[in-house]
Amino acid sequence: MSALPASPTTYSLFDHLICSACRQPYTPAVLHTLSPCCHMPLLAQYTLTGGPDKRILLHREGTMWRYREVLPVFSAAHQISLGEGFTPMLGLNRLGAANGFSDLWLKDEGKNPTGSFKARGLSMAISKAHEYGVEGCIIPTAGNAGVAMAAYCARAAMQAVVVMPRHTPKAFQEECYWYGADVHLIDGLINDCAAKVRQLNSSGQWLDLSTLKEPYRIEGKKTMGYEIAEQMNWQLPDVILYPAGGGTGLIGIWKAFREMQQLGWLPADIRLPRMVAVQAENCQPLVDTWLGKQPNAQQYNGKPTLANGLAVPRPIGEPLMLNVLHESRGLTLGISEADMVDSVREIGKTEGVFLAPEGAALWTAARQLLRQGWLSATDRVLLLNTGNGQKYLDNLRPFLTD
Amino acid sequence: MSALPASPTTYSLFDHLICSACRQPYTPAVLHTLSPCCHMPLLAQYTLTGGPDKRILLHREGTMWRYREVLPVFSAAHQISLGEGFTPMLGLNRLGAANGFSDLWLKDEGKNPTGSFKARGLSMAISKAHEYGVEGCIIPTAGNAGVAMAAYCARAAMQAVVVMPRHTPKAFQEECYWYGADVHLIDGLINDCAAKVRQLNSSGQWLDLSTLKEPYRIEGKKTMGYEIAEQMNWQLPDVILYPAGGGTGLIGIWKAFREMQQLGWLPADIRLPRMVAVQAENCQPLVDTWLGKQPNAQQYNGKPTLANGLAVPRPIGEPLMLNVLHESRGLTLGISEADMVDSVREIGKTEGVFLAPEGAALWTAARQLLRQGWLSATDRVLLLNTGNGQKYLDNLRPFLTD
Ligand SMILES: Cc1ncc(COP(=O)(O)O)c(C=O)c1O
Ligand SMILES: Cc1ncc(COP(=O)(O)O)c(C=O)c1O
Ligand SMILES: [Zn+2]
Ligand SMILES: [Zn+2]
Repeated sequence: MSALPASPTTYSLFDHLICSACRQPYTPAVLHTLSPCCHMPLLAQYTLTGGPDKRILLHREGTMWRYREVLPVFSAAHQISLGEGFTPMLGLNRLGAANGFSDLWLKDEGKNPTGSFKARGLSMAISKAHEYGVEGCIIPTAGNAGVAMAAYCARAAMQAVVVMPRHTPKAFQEECYWYGADVHLIDGLINDCAAKVRQLNSSGQWLDLSTLKEPYRIEGKKTMGYEIAEQMNWQLPDVILYPAGGGTGLIGIWKAFREMQQLGWLPADIRLPRMVAVQAENCQPLVDTWLGKQPNAQQYNGKPTLANGLAVPRPIGEPLMLNVLHESRGLTLGISEADMVDSVREIGKTEGVFLAPEGAALWTAARQLLRQGWLSATDRVLLLNTGNGQKYLDNLRPFLTD
Repeated sequence: MSALPASPTTYSLFDHLICSACRQPYTPAVLHTLSPCCHMPLLAQYTLTGGPDKRILLHREGTMWRYREVLPVFSAAHQISLGEGFTPMLGLNRLGAANGFSDLWLKDEGKNPTGSFKARGLSMAISKAHEYGVEGCIIPTAGNAGVAMAAYCARAAMQAVVVMPRHTPKAFQEECYWYGADVHLIDGLINDCAAKVRQLNSSGQWLDLSTLKEPYRIEGKKTMGYEIAEQMNWQLPDVILYPAGGGTGLIGIWKAFREMQQLGWLPADIRLPRMVAVQAENCQPLVDTWLGKQPNAQQYNGKPTLANGLAVPRPIGEPLMLNVLHESRGLTLGISEADMVDSVREIGKTEGVFLAPEGAALWTAARQLLRQGWLSATDRVLLLNTGNGQKYLDNLRPFLTD
């Protein structure tokens, strides 16, 4: 995992990395994982002042690579792409009207390659790994990230090792096999998978793509923030609801908003959206910390949930997530299993979109927040559906009969 | 199923319908099914001479609705959209190089809403039905078309009745339920489902959306042709391989090429692609007619195949398909079940795309045609993958172990 050749001319404005805890800078000439100083996530920094006008976007391709100036990959030759990003932004007019919302939207990340927003992060991480000459990757996953890694590794001719909980629906496991990945099934949740990854990778032969343990997945995720702004014609929503597990999407979208302010793509004094982190009641570490029930999530124990991606009991990005909630005047709440299923059904029947339970939880949350008066009927509300319901059929089958 | 209000100003150049057999014209003021004259498919005709320049496309949305001038829907208010179309065009460089192709491409229709190219046809048919005030639809389907109809009917608040073979993978059936559709399971193939549709709908209470029995699904499908041209920068492939069941895609793509010539978007003297209709050996009515083994497919008996969408024993569009093959100097061939699975695996492992068996069959076909010299190494070859492998896991499971 070598050093990069001295970067020639590139369209990328990527300049250096900083430690998210102490802001110590690091060079991107070598491949990093957590910061050596604080053992915390590293974040990519760009030269944004004097950056390009947003009109550069007008004739760009319909993928996340349209934002290449603010992405860390130096050369198009290293883009490992399956067409990820620039997903549909759908108005939910009938559902909204029937429930007292006048400006309700859904961004449908289920339309990404491999069926979830994880495609963005893994496309970016694998592209960057390819640029550094990496030959194989390993990941602990609740499901979707593993499938995405398997697909992008195949596309990049890299070896892929995926470690997921044994209770993950078969659809996730089997899709990995079709991409030629090695799959390990573990009794437990994603933190148990992480322990297995450390054991399998004790020699360091593979690049570990655990959430926020390498700095580039989040750079893929942040493109959702750029798209929300561009697709809404630079009129941001009042509130964004996001299903938070490890939290890269939440952190990434917020990072994008801040970058766009620096670029001048958004006014410096714009009122940014309030960010809502939605969790599963069965595993709501962030909610418990937010409510003061624990100092942090480092000892939290969660249960499985049918929203597999939300079963992340001890997220390393917790401080970064809390920071976004505070800065944005947002909040976090947990949703029951039964409520998620009801929302899958209601959105399916009313709007024709089959959401992952993670995404469906957002709709329950939105209705609760409206009832409580935290949302108002005229707020522009965006549900960020992170995945397609397709791979969750095993989980949903018990609820099939009406 | 009423008459349209006298069309006000519209961006659509849609003018009238003609019978595909005798070219008798029909007005679009009322909703049609098969032509009253010949009981054959009707085709939409547009006023194309003096039409717009293709530069109108530059700033259009990334869906099939970017081609609204050449689509039959008169008003944007009736577009029932989930973000269908403008799917990725992926270079298959490694797969191609390893197999003697220097210019190999895949258009990935699996990225459409509901996971297949059927989304295009059903979005268009349901939009048009919405414009006519239809309140419910019924469809006989091999799987994907039914799922798509269920989704778009939900989005349009229409009733949906889906009739599919009992052996269709559970994923298709269950997704329909989540959209609130009525699902009927039939012992047999799609022609048996069609008989059931006639019985259920003997009163005519629902609009019958059987392939080519109403004139607008094909208008959705033809947008693939427009996209192929636009995404390849108006340099068409030498050969397009397409998995043909009912054949709407094949017929639609060809119709699009002809329309673009009339519009001046393609030169009148351009060499159009040779079109290859790929079928499953288990159900290859078109191949048998092509080879002179039968006068036509009207008595053909097929067997089920794991490429469910190719199990169409007696396609009403057969004459139109044969016409495309003749005009384009193309051909048709059948692929074995085992070869499809091998191709699913090879493309998964080499390029990171999980293809429906229908799409995978194209890759087997391409290699065979190269070996036979019908394709040459430098031909620009496009595989039109019509669906995502996700819903076929039941079919593929027996082949999982290497
Ligand atoms: C569908 C889905 N939604 C949400 C999440 C949580 O994402 P993050 O870990 O980035 O917060 C996941 C993670 O696996 C997921 O698969
Ligand atoms: C994935 C897939 N490919 C191909 C086909 C055949 O399409 P057509 O009937 O338009 O020829 C179908 C039809 O069900 C399908 O679902
Ligand atoms: Zn530090
Ligand atoms: Zn006629």
